[in-house]
Amino acid sequence: VSPVAAIDLNADLGEGFGPWRMADDEALLGVVTSANVACGFHAGDPVTMRRVCEQAAERGVVVGAHVAYRDLQGFGRRPLAVPSDELVADLTYQIGGLAAVAAAAGSPVRYVKAHGALYNQAVAEDELADVLVTAVAAVAGGLAVVSLPGSATEVAARRHGLPTVAEGYLDRAYDRRGHLVPRSEPGSVITDPGAIVERAVALATGAPVRSHDGTEVSVQVRTLCTHGDTEAALELARAARRALEEAGVEVRPFAAALGATAG
Amino acid sequence: VSPVAAIDLNADLGEGFGPWRMADDEALLGVVTSANVACGFHAGDPVTMRRVCEQAAERGVVVGAHVAYRDLQGFGRRPLAVPSDELVADLTYQIGGLAAVAAAAGSPVRYVKAHGALYNQAVAEDELADVLVTAVAAVAGGLAVVSLPGSATEVAARRHGLPTVAEGYLDRAYDRRGHLVPRSEPGSVITDPGAIVERAVALATGAPVRSHDGTEVSVQVRTLCTHGDTEAALELARAARRALEEAGVEVRPFAAALGATAG
Amino acid sequence: VSPVAAIDLNADLGEGFGPWRMADDEALLGVVTSANVACGFHAGDPVTMRRVCEQAAERGVVVGAHVAYRDLQGFGRRPLAVPSDELVADLTYQIGGLAAVAAAAGSPVRYVKAHGALYNQAVAEDELADVLVTAVAAVAGGLAVVSLPGSATEVAARRHGLPTVAEGYLDRAYDRRGHLVPRSEPGSVITDPGAIVERAVALATGAPVRSHDGTEVSVQVRTLCTHGDTEAALELARAARRALEEAGVEVRPFAAALGATAG
Amino acid sequence: VSPVAAIDLNADLGEGFGPWRMADDEALLGVVTSANVACGFHAGDPVTMRRVCEQAAERGVVVGAHVAYRDLQGFGRRPLAVPSDELVADLTYQIGGLAAVAAAAGSPVRYVKAHGALYNQAVAEDELADVLVTAVAAVAGGLAVVSLPGSATEVAARRHGLPTVAEGYLDRAYDRRGHLVPRSEPGSVITDPGAIVERAVALATGAPVRSHDGTEVSVQVRTLCTHGDTEAALELARAARRALEEAGVEVRPFAAALGATAG
Repeated sequence: VSPVAAIDLNADLGEGFGPWRMADDEALLGVVTSANVACGFHAGDPVTMRRVCEQAAERGVVVGAHVAYRDLQGFGRRPLAVPSDELVADLTYQIGGLAAVAAAAGSPVRYVKAHGALYNQAVAEDELADVLVTAVAAVAGGLAVVSLPGSATEVAARRHGLPTVAEGYLDRAYDRRGHLVPRSEPGSVITDPGAIVERAVALATGAPVRSHDGTEVSVQVRTLCTHGDTEAALELARAARRALEEAGVEVRPFAAALGATAG
Repeated sequence: VSPVAAIDLNADLGEGFGPWRMADDEALLGVVTSANVACGFHAGDPVTMRRVCEQAAERGVVVGAHVAYRDLQGFGRRPLAVPSDELVADLTYQIGGLAAVAAAAGSPVRYVKAHGALYNQAVAEDELADVLVTAVAAVAGGLAVVSLPGSATEVAARRHGLPTVAEGYLDRAYDRRGHLVPRSEPGSVITDPGAIVERAVALATGAPVRSHDGTEVSVQVRTLCTHGDTEAALELARAARRALEEAGVEVRPFAAALGATAG
Repeated sequence: VSPVAAIDLNADLGEGFGPWRMADDEALLGVVTSANVACGFHAGDPVTMRRVCEQAAERGVVVGAHVAYRDLQGFGRRPLAVPSDELVADLTYQIGGLAAVAAAAGSPVRYVKAHGALYNQAVAEDELADVLVTAVAAVAGGLAVVSLPGSATEVAARRHGLPTVAEGYLDRAYDRRGHLVPRSEPGSVITDPGAIVERAVALATGAPVRSHDGTEVSVQVRTLCTHGDTEAALELARAARRALEEAGVEVRPFAAALGATAG
Repeated sequence: VSPVAAIDLNADLGEGFGPWRMADDEALLGVVTSANVACGFHAGDPVTMRRVCEQAAERGVVVGAHVAYRDLQGFGRRPLAVPSDELVADLTYQIGGLAAVAAAAGSPVRYVKAHGALYNQAVAEDELADVLVTAVAAVAGGLAVVSLPGSATEVAARRHGLPTVAEGYLDRAYDRRGHLVPRSEPGSVITDPGAIVERAVALATGAPVRSHDGTEVSVQVRTLCTHGDTEAALELARAARRALEEAGVEVRPFAAALGATAG
């Protein structure tokens, strides 16, 4: 392992709304280095945003805008056919709303990641990817865009001149091209804790991982997506972080290498 | 009339939501010099915000954030007992959401005005006024705060070091102290078009207006609130502007004298 | 024209929300015999529902539940991928909510019609049609289902043992099978007022109408969909009603022939 | 203890929304005999309502409509100044929406209880109590109204000819008139588990409880309000039920003695 290997850990935070909570945000902030904070359309009221951003500032965790369709009941997981010009405005508004709250809390927004159905669709569909990136580009500061390596989102972000950050998954199988195996296929989700932790280190150090069909594939990523919606998920994220540190990988925000901020 | 007399005209715009429209925004943008744009909590979806802000940019109309309680059904007109820390976050979010959309449309947000029940309560209640101004102060740029002269909002804005802009009403009676007569009192609302237009010129030039009880009172304001929610209201706003121009008053954005922007 | 020919005229009503209005409900209630009342998810707050239902009761207009996706911003026009079990519950809730308000206003709900994207999808997709009809069947009273003749919705309603009511369109071209020509095709929407009024009489009396490709086609319908969202549309609905009455067609609620009610 | 003593236990259920959950509904349904089910305005989406109502039907738990202000972010806990005619419609709609879902799930709605700020205000304010009861009376079936004994709600319900059900609290101090001591006063909330359980038996059997100022006061109630929003609260509810059963009190739905249903 190279002594300069470094990786970012990201997770979804601030996914409560009003009286409701989702993950244990405080615990997660002790594990990750980047927080994808819900912006109010699928989850996240402003006071929740502020609390998360204040805690993130205290811990040096970088904040990103986790944008989504306007669908509180469906938590942004249901595809919604929004006309492009409306969706650009919806997403710009979300980024701006969070950015104002976050900046006031000491955590300027540094990146954008799509949530749920929008994330999945923008990975695969050029038009939706362009809508997403157009909204990011409309906000001052040249925010980075987090998505899958090789995705339509990444291509669109590059075309718009925005920094891109490739994201890896610890608990998902890759195919031989380094793309995620669709959830609908058997074996697409990895559940063995040991395999997940091992994969974290491989992805962080650039070592090849075994693909779905047994070949070895190299996946270049700068951030790893972790989860905190259950106690087991949180424990797994902690284990991944420990393994990374023991392997000599520096766990730090990818944004440390970027300069821009919004807010 | 002094040749240097100048006044701003403001009105509420972008008060539609989804398929619905309220005033004739395009027509109003031909009359006013400042647009109080709804920020999504009592009215105003992001695509409506963008359209208004684009049109405002074309016409040189300045955009302000018209913030409110989260109450779409009640249009922000129903008092809602929101805890202070929640309300600060709600208002900061609204300003930021509009600011991002507005800046992308070429109309940076220059001021904040409260809407409906929040406006009325923040005029009279110190705590609510402080909440409102705290939210404005949390946003970068030192945005101006529009409110009634002598109101709790104005006092709070000065305490926070924010620019204040005193607002006059063409169709409301003043008492001998220069305060608005409550709507619940007889004679509080002026309906005679001639009187309204005459009052516009008096308020703009610093001439005294006749108060509710017959005395003359001088009210110092930098912007006049107009309405466009009916054809008659729009025609009255046009008549007021014509009368102002004929009286040699320059109708221009109050923000022309300010430096700060948010977005 | 047979002396016993009778037809129902329906239109969408109560499509306001909070401070906003859509059509001129009162004027429309003087034209139609069945009112598709919005149930709160795409439009329609409860006080608007009650006002429409009270006015409908005064005029003998029958009330139906106009159900939709939960999408106020998009007015129910944007396809939303709701899991079937959730959608059944959402639709049942909408029918029940309106039914309680309507019954209290003296207008028991007698039928259900889907709105917007849900209507279009349930016309063509068997699974969605079944979801829609399952929700109707879950409500007591054996409510009728209004849809296009030959649609998946009609088939599903028959399978569930619910009364079906075939609906015709005055301003849409039919193909030689009697199905609507998709809006995306040229000539699909008829704009000539004379042709629209003529078509109303033909559809009401069972006379053939000229199809899109010049053949004559017979379309059997019991209700005609009219519009009131513009003054021109309202005038056209009035003209259609006058022409029907002059042709000896009785304009009356289709529900007059049904027995069931909900509420 | 009389062998015929019987009491109902009620709790708030179905207080999730979309992806979020509040209490452990399934566990609570094993303890209580009446479920106050959220109707969608402060909490509760239709699919959550259906799940709770199905489980209630399986266990013989009676369902009531837990109605509230439209305020998802504030969970119905923030007073909202809704005009009376609007509020009547809002509440009628909520009852009807739940009633349709509940009836389809085999659990007809049998009673109504106000939630949060509405509950508190309707206890003390005659006008609001009348609005609440007017909405209940607008729904067919003569639903019972649950509230504090001697409250404005109870008085209004009697005036409207609706069955009333007096409710007691295990964890709240009573004054010498048998009214709850306001939460703002010291000692108003009882936290000692033993005292709470003891109070359950006293209230259920009609035995006097010690009031806030040391006198003994007799409070006549037919249902006891329990909580399940924390594991400790749930355990306390279980302990109260066990103590009641050990004391020979029959724990059964108060609605067993009523005849009416809505849905």
